[in-house]
Amino acid sequence: MIEPHNWGRWGADDERGTLNLLTPEVVLAAMGSVRQGRVVSLALPIRGSTSSPARLGVPHLPGRPLPQHFMSVDGADYAAGVRPIGPGVCVCDDALVVSPHGTTTHLDALCHMWTGDKLYNGHDAARVRSYGATRCGIDKAGGIVTRGVFLDVAAALGVPHLDGGFRIGADLLDGADIRPGDAVVIRTGWPLVHASDPGRYQHPQPGLSYEAGLWLAERDVALVAMDNAAIAALDDHGRCTEPLEEDLHLLFLWRHGIHLLEMLWLEELATLGATEFLFMLAPLTVEGGTASPVNPLAVL
Amino acid sequence: MIEPHNWGRWGADDERGTLNLLTPEVVLAAMGSVRQGRVVSLALPIRGSTSSPARLGVPHLPGRPLPQHFMSVDGADYAAGVRPIGPGVCVCDDALVVSPHGTTTHLDALCHMWTGDKLYNGHDAARVRSYGATRCGIDKAGGIVTRGVFLDVAAALGVPHLDGGFRIGADLLDGADIRPGDAVVIRTGWPLVHASDPGRYQHPQPGLSYEAGLWLAERDVALVAMDNAAIAALDDHGRCTEPLEEDLHLLFLWRHGIHLLEMLWLEELATLGATEFLFMLAPLTVEGGTASPVNPLAVL
Amino acid sequence: MIEPHNWGRWGADDERGTLNLLTPEVVLAAMGSVRQGRVVSLALPIRGSTSSPARLGVPHLPGRPLPQHFMSVDGADYAAGVRPIGPGVCVCDDALVVSPHGTTTHLDALCHMWTGDKLYNGHDAARVRSYGATRCGIDKAGGIVTRGVFLDVAAALGVPHLDGGFRIGADLLDGADIRPGDAVVIRTGWPLVHASDPGRYQHPQPGLSYEAGLWLAERDVALVAMDNAAIAALDDHGRCTEPLEEDLHLLFLWRHGIHLLEMLWLEELATLGATEFLFMLAPLTVEGGTASPVNPLAVL
Amino acid sequence: MIEPHNWGRWGADDERGTLNLLTPEVVLAAMGSVRQGRVVSLALPIRGSTSSPARLGVPHLPGRPLPQHFMSVDGADYAAGVRPIGPGVCVCDDALVVSPHGTTTHLDALCHMWTGDKLYNGHDAARVRSYGATRCGIDKAGGIVTRGVFLDVAAALGVPHLDGGFRIGADLLDGADIRPGDAVVIRTGWPLVHASDPGRYQHPQPGLSYEAGLWLAERDVALVAMDNAAIAALDDHGRCTEPLEEDLHLLFLWRHGIHLLEMLWLEELATLGATEFLFMLAPLTVEGGTASPVNPLAVL
Repeated sequence: MIEPHNWGRWGADDERGTLNLLTPEVVLAAMGSVRQGRVVSLALPIRGSTSSPARLGVPHLPGRPLPQHFMSVDGADYAAGVRPIGPGVCVCDDALVVSPHGTTTHLDALCHMWTGDKLYNGHDAARVRSYGATRCGIDKAGGIVTRGVFLDVAAALGVPHLDGGFRIGADLLDGADIRPGDAVVIRTGWPLVHASDPGRYQHPQPGLSYEAGLWLAERDVALVAMDNAAIAALDDHGRCTEPLEEDLHLLFLWRHGIHLLEMLWLEELATLGATEFLFMLAPLTVEGGTASPVNPLAVL
Repeated sequence: MIEPHNWGRWGADDERGTLNLLTPEVVLAAMGSVRQGRVVSLALPIRGSTSSPARLGVPHLPGRPLPQHFMSVDGADYAAGVRPIGPGVCVCDDALVVSPHGTTTHLDALCHMWTGDKLYNGHDAARVRSYGATRCGIDKAGGIVTRGVFLDVAAALGVPHLDGGFRIGADLLDGADIRPGDAVVIRTGWPLVHASDPGRYQHPQPGLSYEAGLWLAERDVALVAMDNAAIAALDDHGRCTEPLEEDLHLLFLWRHGIHLLEMLWLEELATLGATEFLFMLAPLTVEGGTASPVNPLAVL
Repeated sequence: MIEPHNWGRWGADDERGTLNLLTPEVVLAAMGSVRQGRVVSLALPIRGSTSSPARLGVPHLPGRPLPQHFMSVDGADYAAGVRPIGPGVCVCDDALVVSPHGTTTHLDALCHMWTGDKLYNGHDAARVRSYGATRCGIDKAGGIVTRGVFLDVAAALGVPHLDGGFRIGADLLDGADIRPGDAVVIRTGWPLVHASDPGRYQHPQPGLSYEAGLWLAERDVALVAMDNAAIAALDDHGRCTEPLEEDLHLLFLWRHGIHLLEMLWLEELATLGATEFLFMLAPLTVEGGTASPVNPLAVL
Repeated sequence: MIEPHNWGRWGADDERGTLNLLTPEVVLAAMGSVRQGRVVSLALPIRGSTSSPARLGVPHLPGRPLPQHFMSVDGADYAAGVRPIGPGVCVCDDALVVSPHGTTTHLDALCHMWTGDKLYNGHDAARVRSYGATRCGIDKAGGIVTRGVFLDVAAALGVPHLDGGFRIGADLLDGADIRPGDAVVIRTGWPLVHASDPGRYQHPQPGLSYEAGLWLAERDVALVAMDNAAIAALDDHGRCTEPLEEDLHLLFLWRHGIHLLEMLWLEELATLGATEFLFMLAPLTVEGGTASPVNPLAVL
């Protein structure tokens, strides 16, 4: 049996904004990270056209239901004779079907993973029901505004991307200036593999080692963000092979209440050379959700 | 036939971040609006449990398909005997089905409305197809980080909320310190009606007058954000009754390339007394989408 | 505590086609009911265009998520310039989102309702999980081919439709020639109310009395089919007011293993004057589903 | 340019039941095909649990969005403490998201494929819009009750299944007793490949040759039904390689108004040795749909 570490440290999780680590001081300090006034999106596109093979062209994990995007009325309809909704006014409308994990840039809710029968902070796991999670759902994450720290591990090692299966050791993080409440953004470069050879993307994947995870958790970061699919490395069969007590999702989400942000697109950020910025993340307020698709912003 | 006004002024719309008005100077200046380090969400909850009447309890327009949220595996399943995905590791997963217009706090894409056969900037409206909009889609909006200005019209008039059908005149905005690139957030208080009497919410609704709209457009704001459902007022039948040439969606989206943010929850912001803040909005990168559900943040 | 009656009579429910009452003899005898060679559909339309108010124009219960139908590529797209999938070949494609109960003509699975912690035939109710029902799901219903008997109660009483709240007594069924394995189709005429005044349709509704339900159950019918929304009558608030021990869903689905078919359109059948026919129903093989939208056929 | 052949022969397609070939005489005669009173489903399961790899274990074409099935409340929820909807009454409820083509046993609507700018019977293809097809939609197919003829080509050739890429020649059909209005059900055995080696299933696939298609079309069959994914054979890349004028979908759907039923499960039927039966098919009444998932029944 593994033990929780930081239950209670992050707030009672009975209202929005459990991350009480994100104090006004942390937020105010983060503003000082902005130097250029440049806004960079860290999200992959959501490509949902089900009648086009294009949507397969976005990084995703095997077997997951990819996003679906439907126009319920569009410009081609009007061109073909559909009556405008008012005299002269044309409108287009759409719908999105999305299962965030493994398919989009998304933030995991604290309820996303646990061991035993308790969620983070000791809430009964059986309260995560078909209606949604009444505790630790994504609606409790609130808006996350803090300092972002960019650790471009691939660049530090002088490679375009880390190798599949590679685990980032704690030594590769050592020396980084990390403060409590930081959003730590780590680049493996793995999405470049998808761009050049989609078939190779899914597995294996590089990821964080347990020791590196511990190193980050001990520094009380607010959020760990990466451009791989599962924070941990994936083996040739797409599995995380860490033993239960070293599982990185359990380490961050369940033991420490640290949110995880996965499947980022960091290539633009990497070319800009910034290592510190204002990080802004606004998960959708899906009551009881296990995750939210997001568009994280770095303000340089 | 009505004429476009500001086509071209906002950028060529062929890549992300068409709002070239949001210059580095605007972004940097916005940082100066943060004084307390407090982050406030301006979003309504997304309540999608289809087997519970609760989801009807969120403001929405009649006839619209409300968000649906499904757990594909949850804590109750494990309690009932579902095998964990790994030895000791439980995971919950979910899906969201959402049509943003009229059902959630959402940002309209510039393609959402037009007249004639051209979108904003003169793109062919017939390019908005079942695959999505290849021009002026929500993926082109990019992250919006700018100064937010809060105009609490209900408070200014000394009422808890404006009356259904009331139109905010330009005189009620006059004197406000609005700069190019601002996100102007206007409170009618109308969602309070939903809280006390859901049946009254849908229509009529208060909204902006055309004159007030012109006043804002002339000031080159980046975004107009309100807590009603359609920016314009709605009559007893739920319709905007402005003539075509005074249609507010056409004025903002189509003539001026000004994004619209609707169905905000501004009650918390209203109690905090802030009139200026850092505004941050990160629409999902749905390729060719007509809108995105969003969780706008005000950093006070 | 109410007691199950016929657990075990209908088969072990561990494979498709639990209704072992539908013996070859019953099926063969049903063929003799065909006299004209005329096929009549008993289904309401599924109208799913979310950008049109039309979909509200189909009978449905309040608060239920109505069907949504999306074209992912259509003829208007090609007219507007979308490239055919092959040289000269155009294809259209679509998606359907449907929650059958209360929104479509549908067949309830035996797992749809229960009391206590056991499903029909004593299966553990906790085996109905987010993955679906491993016992008594709609995939177990199999194809239902049997004799149909039409009881046009509205016509028998000389009214266009029964009144809202009216309960069909056992006396109104008495005398009908019902045999084991029959599909009994009962007309209230209530959908006519929707056609003339949609606002009145939802509630109250006429329905079956408990005594009539018992009368049918005792005759070992395979299926009870009606054109109201809930078999039982609905009061002014849309509720079935029978006490637990007289609940009609429990009586049929849970106590007797008799499937329920709801929200039929029987007006065409009513005008044809047939009282006996070949009844054919083929629920979708959704593994573990609680219902299936269906298109029941009467072959006269 | 290829030419339509039988436009107009099958009815005006302005109401349900365009297949006027299915005359009362044809339906009555079909009843005589029933000898054993045995009902056999010809459908594959619809397996929609998105959190389980099981759903990948059903035959499907690559890149298609697989069915998704969600329980919005289930038995595990009640076991975990969800309150029953009434005193003692538990209910489970669900939703299905389905794109039929390439993912389920489904019937193609006549609008599913065309060449040029006209659908079958000369309707304007641009009338197939985001709202659905106002002509030749699946709602127009009506219930199909007719004689079924089973041609087990794999058995006739003494193989468990035809080879990938194999085309069934007209010679292999010659001699079969086919009458106008018949539903011709052809077995390739290809789904057995999926059962033993899912990776091999998608392509290549065996299928019908153009000559065999012509042979069937000339006999005025009502419907061609097969257990492969696309009626035509698929090459190593999953493509039909027939030239435009020999495209089988165009031949059947567009030139002759003959419905196509794909992705059947015929293994149970094959073991029963029946060559003639009552065929019954009831597509969902999705207004303007391009297809319907179905559960075709053979009554032996």
